[in-house]
Amino acid sequence: MVNRYAVILAAGQGTRMKSKLYKVLHPVCGKPMIQHIVDELNGLSFDRTVTVIGHGAEAVKRQLGQSTEYALQEKQLGTAHAVNQTAPLLNQLIGTTVVLCGDTPLITKETIKDLLDYHDKTGASATVLTTIMDNPFGYGRIIRKSTGELARIVEEKDTTQDEKLVKEINTGIYCFDNQKLFETLKKVNNNNAQGEYYLPDVIEILTKSSEKVAAYSIDNEDETIGVNDRVALSIAEKLMRKRINEHHMRSGVTLIDPDTTYLSSDCQIGPDTIIYPGTSIKGKTMIGEQCEIGPHTEIMSCEIGVNTSVKQSVLENSSIGNDVHIGPFAHIRPESHIGDEVKIGNFVEVKKSTIGNRSKASHLTYIGDSEIGKDVNFGCGSITVNYDGKNKYLTRVEDGAFIGCNANLIAPVTVGKGAFIAAGSTITQSVNDDSLAIARARQVNKENYTHKLEFKKNK
Amino acid sequence: MVNRYAVILAAGQGTRMKSKLYKVLHPVCGKPMIQHIVDELNGLSFDRTVTVIGHGAEAVKRQLGQSTEYALQEKQLGTAHAVNQTAPLLNQLIGTTVVLCGDTPLITKETIKDLLDYHDKTGASATVLTTIMDNPFGYGRIIRKSTGELARIVEEKDTTQDEKLVKEINTGIYCFDNQKLFETLKKVNNNNAQGEYYLPDVIEILTKSSEKVAAYSIDNEDETIGVNDRVALSIAEKLMRKRINEHHMRSGVTLIDPDTTYLSSDCQIGPDTIIYPGTSIKGKTMIGEQCEIGPHTEIMSCEIGVNTSVKQSVLENSSIGNDVHIGPFAHIRPESHIGDEVKIGNFVEVKKSTIGNRSKASHLTYIGDSEIGKDVNFGCGSITVNYDGKNKYLTRVEDGAFIGCNANLIAPVTVGKGAFIAAGSTITQSVNDDSLAIARARQVNKENYTHKLEFKKNK
Amino acid sequence: MVNRYAVILAAGQGTRMKSKLYKVLHPVCGKPMIQHIVDELNGLSFDRTVTVIGHGAEAVKRQLGQSTEYALQEKQLGTAHAVNQTAPLLNQLIGTTVVLCGDTPLITKETIKDLLDYHDKTGASATVLTTIMDNPFGYGRIIRKSTGELARIVEEKDTTQDEKLVKEINTGIYCFDNQKLFETLKKVNNNNAQGEYYLPDVIEILTKSSEKVAAYSIDNEDETIGVNDRVALSIAEKLMRKRINEHHMRSGVTLIDPDTTYLSSDCQIGPDTIIYPGTSIKGKTMIGEQCEIGPHTEIMSCEIGVNTSVKQSVLENSSIGNDVHIGPFAHIRPESHIGDEVKIGNFVEVKKSTIGNRSKASHLTYIGDSEIGKDVNFGCGSITVNYDGKNKYLTRVEDGAFIGCNANLIAPVTVGKGAFIAAGSTITQSVNDDSLAIARARQVNKENYTHKLEFKKNK
Repeated sequence: MVNRYAVILAAGQGTRMKSKLYKVLHPVCGKPMIQHIVDELNGLSFDRTVTVIGHGAEAVKRQLGQSTEYALQEKQLGTAHAVNQTAPLLNQLIGTTVVLCGDTPLITKETIKDLLDYHDKTGASATVLTTIMDNPFGYGRIIRKSTGELARIVEEKDTTQDEKLVKEINTGIYCFDNQKLFETLKKVNNNNAQGEYYLPDVIEILTKSSEKVAAYSIDNEDETIGVNDRVALSIAEKLMRKRINEHHMRSGVTLIDPDTTYLSSDCQIGPDTIIYPGTSIKGKTMIGEQCEIGPHTEIMSCEIGVNTSVKQSVLENSSIGNDVHIGPFAHIRPESHIGDEVKIGNFVEVKKSTIGNRSKASHLTYIGDSEIGKDVNFGCGSITVNYDGKNKYLTRVEDGAFIGCNANLIAPVTVGKGAFIAAGSTITQSVNDDSLAIARARQVNKENYTHKLEFKKNK
Repeated sequence: MVNRYAVILAAGQGTRMKSKLYKVLHPVCGKPMIQHIVDELNGLSFDRTVTVIGHGAEAVKRQLGQSTEYALQEKQLGTAHAVNQTAPLLNQLIGTTVVLCGDTPLITKETIKDLLDYHDKTGASATVLTTIMDNPFGYGRIIRKSTGELARIVEEKDTTQDEKLVKEINTGIYCFDNQKLFETLKKVNNNNAQGEYYLPDVIEILTKSSEKVAAYSIDNEDETIGVNDRVALSIAEKLMRKRINEHHMRSGVTLIDPDTTYLSSDCQIGPDTIIYPGTSIKGKTMIGEQCEIGPHTEIMSCEIGVNTSVKQSVLENSSIGNDVHIGPFAHIRPESHIGDEVKIGNFVEVKKSTIGNRSKASHLTYIGDSEIGKDVNFGCGSITVNYDGKNKYLTRVEDGAFIGCNANLIAPVTVGKGAFIAAGSTITQSVNDDSLAIARARQVNKENYTHKLEFKKNK
Repeated sequence: MVNRYAVILAAGQGTRMKSKLYKVLHPVCGKPMIQHIVDELNGLSFDRTVTVIGHGAEAVKRQLGQSTEYALQEKQLGTAHAVNQTAPLLNQLIGTTVVLCGDTPLITKETIKDLLDYHDKTGASATVLTTIMDNPFGYGRIIRKSTGELARIVEEKDTTQDEKLVKEINTGIYCFDNQKLFETLKKVNNNNAQGEYYLPDVIEILTKSSEKVAAYSIDNEDETIGVNDRVALSIAEKLMRKRINEHHMRSGVTLIDPDTTYLSSDCQIGPDTIIYPGTSIKGKTMIGEQCEIGPHTEIMSCEIGVNTSVKQSVLENSSIGNDVHIGPFAHIRPESHIGDEVKIGNFVEVKKSTIGNRSKASHLTYIGDSEIGKDVNFGCGSITVNYDGKNKYLTRVEDGAFIGCNANLIAPVTVGKGAFIAAGSTITQSVNDDSLAIARARQVNKENYTHKLEFKKNK
């Protein structure tokens, strides 16, 4: 087995992004572009992986951590120059090196593997990854020999009329015999308009030296799209979205409108779950079977059971049980744990609370910093008062308790099992099991009085 | 007039759907695929319609009810075998039989009628419905005689180089002379790799017997799309959505973004109504003229008057009058009846209630199990307390009453005409016409006191 | 420099729109079609601009105001007749006249300028704006002489087999030598099936008189799309949306899904701001750098600072500071002014209020007609009671005050600096600085009592 190495070029500035964020760190479907590439590479077994960093070097290292080695390109003097910065790490090694760009987030490990396998099988000194484009304008054209080997790559400005018609183009991804790569890099010069050292020159030098250079063509041109501005970024996002969504649909998830369903590459969804339009599922969210999610729902890093519905709501970093109904217009904030058969209705917020099975908060309620038992009913407008302007306190409501409408539970406070809080009460002291707590004024009716109300007088 | 019969093949399992739900029952734009087909057939006049059922037979019968007859195919031994299960019902009859697949939800009655008319006009023994595909790979190609009659259908694996270029393909939908169909079915064998009886073999046998076989081609290939997995299901949904939406646009409804407007095939919408993006209108909803609906609104089976706006809200099984303003972020639950010129504002829920003309609930209110008169004002945070933990009770608020902010009306209770409920009151007894009801404690101000509050001490 | 004139044809009825609204007033991306055209023309320097009005004349004049002159076409007798109505204003003038249709909202000033420049350069008597269509069926074909000049325009019904294959078509937009235009208009007759006077006849008469007629072709056929029904309107909207969105992306704004991002042509957005799907930004909204907006947010005519997030919310005609967090599910109504580092959380409505820096209203709150200082905390469910059924009153809350949960502040009322309102209190009198206000009943616990509650008895 030949040793294999990967070089990722990630030093360029990305001026056309017009961003303070370094280009390869711009996310596609929630994950930085370069992380997509590193994750694909990690699905194969490279002996060494080196990322060439420059602009935003520290930020890229923070993102990728220990998963690659790094070579610093202090001045950006072209792609050949960039690869050459890895020489201290790689140039003595025997094996095959693939060179990838950090701004092609759609490349797959299958394609990288196929390219490497093809390269090793043909015994070429270099292999260019190519694809067929309906409109090849602007790309380097692949001119092949009658044997199928690569004759040369012609840049747009140098094409003849015949060459302009060639639809096979250079993707900018290459495999090399590692030692020939570094030998040849020494011969690349910068005698060109930009004064840069270009990696395609390595291909030209090799072909002129009668080295065997292969071209490996893939059908799916989308994989090799490079992101240079935010229009391209949005196209990459759309293609990645389609790829992720088709994977889930083929696994048995119904997406009513895949065009407006935004799934992270790390989420898991059970079969027969239906996702309605306008739904975003982010992070490592796991959703069970036969759920109904959306429309217009955003879920970040949650674990959701089976047969649960979440409509027009926002859920963050929480766990939700089976047979739960959430929404419409509910907000589950981080560190909440919601049991089975719970109902969280409209205009309800839950924050950092545990809610037991079969409990209900159907409307206009806030449950924060609370431990709620089973079979508890929160009336409409009831509130756990967890904040006094300085500190946050805990509320505890035990099994079967009933909290009346518009009641305030001023934490720290405990409502015992089966206790009953009268509507409109502000509860400052704990309530024992099966007790009734009431804190409200008696009703007074003033008969035939409204004509005396000041503001009614001129009516 | 020739008698006409329809056979719908709906017995297959649909393994690639990876679903507990039987394939032909998966909905497209809210209606099961097979129901779309039956509804189209019902738009014509068939003497007999037979659905061949197998997997999920009972569920399909529940869906379709009395609208078709049924034939059971216990083992799925191929499409010819499936049609042959209808023999006890159909094989003696004189007339023309169209055979359709239960997983082609986009076929229209116009196309079915045109196919039947063409078949009858040409006097063919069989007619194949065909279409032209840019990329015909994988489909059975239509090879025609110089007369235009069908010579044969060639499956992909049997195509010559020339035949591969043919773009006219077999859609799998056929018309037959009924008696010739059942005679020929007896001659179909299962000498093939799958050991199945194939319906296209009927065509082959007929052509070989020098029977006249016609091919009727339609322009719109979309109509004949078959749904075998959820990717195809999402494509069918998108095409059906486009069809429904274009119908409404041509009728005078503005859809700001038809790609994200989800209308059921049964809804009605008046001219000059504007639907904003991300809006779903489901069931038999009827919406009048000059309304504004959406964005991000979901309406299920409602009747809505004219000149009403519904923004970022959810409405279910209710009726809404003219000149009403709902939302953003309102929820109208089933069995609500809302009069004219009503305002239901943000974070308001209405459930099983009647609300009279010109009444308002502008914010953070719950009105449940209530009968609300005209010109009533519900203050912010006011609540009808309709549930005591065991039963639900009715609230009655009469014309012109004013309910103060954060007031609770504990049902059963009546607030009389023109009565006034003070803000913050919990009302447990009924209030007479023009009376003031108040139930709150007197305000006490403790001057210069906040430094004494425990939690403030360390501030 | 040649004098330049523009004529916009905007008198037709637009029957196929099926609308009470006059066709050219239907909005595209929030701006009436004809306003788009006038705005583009205003980007150039025309000596005279005349809009030909007829159906809906008054409404069109109200829309366009003083930005054009008007000519009334009382009866709609064809496009040549329409142009001829401008004769009293234009026919004596020397110069070049461009004729545009009021229902082609996508035409750009660049194209109009290029057409005029080409016309003037070639010295033609008339120039037809043309484009290439893959499917030219139905359009007038452009037949050119070997010199490249226009030979004639052939309508679909008159095309030969060869002419049918011509893909260059007449867009219906023309430049003329102004005096030749009006001379030739006199010669146009209405001897045709519709009995109308057609503008292309001017071209025919000129070519037959051996006048030089040029054809200027543009690549982007989208620019010349005419809107005749609401399907075309939705297509124009989509293309305009794409154009606006690409402009913002190239300027450094990330649009996660440009297909579902709805930006007005007048909004401004700073670089590194991210817009999530389903977001509409309307009117003259200005958004600073590094904001996060959406998903599913609607913003109308607001000014928003930097580093602010607005999620699943609706904002109208207000100003929002820097580092503010709004939503999810918040509603900022007109005339609100929100300072820096403010939090407006879920189910909170703000209306016509000023909120100082670092103040918070995190949940279920209504702040209306209020002046709120800095560092104020509104507890959950707290409400400014600004309406007594007749009038609206002001609430004033000074710096550092704390409003307890479910408290009512009955306006007019002032809460002084650092004052504290106890949860559940209804405040009717003003509270001095650093004072505590409380207005609630004492809590009574009835031990072991719930079995006595009527509704529990049969449980």
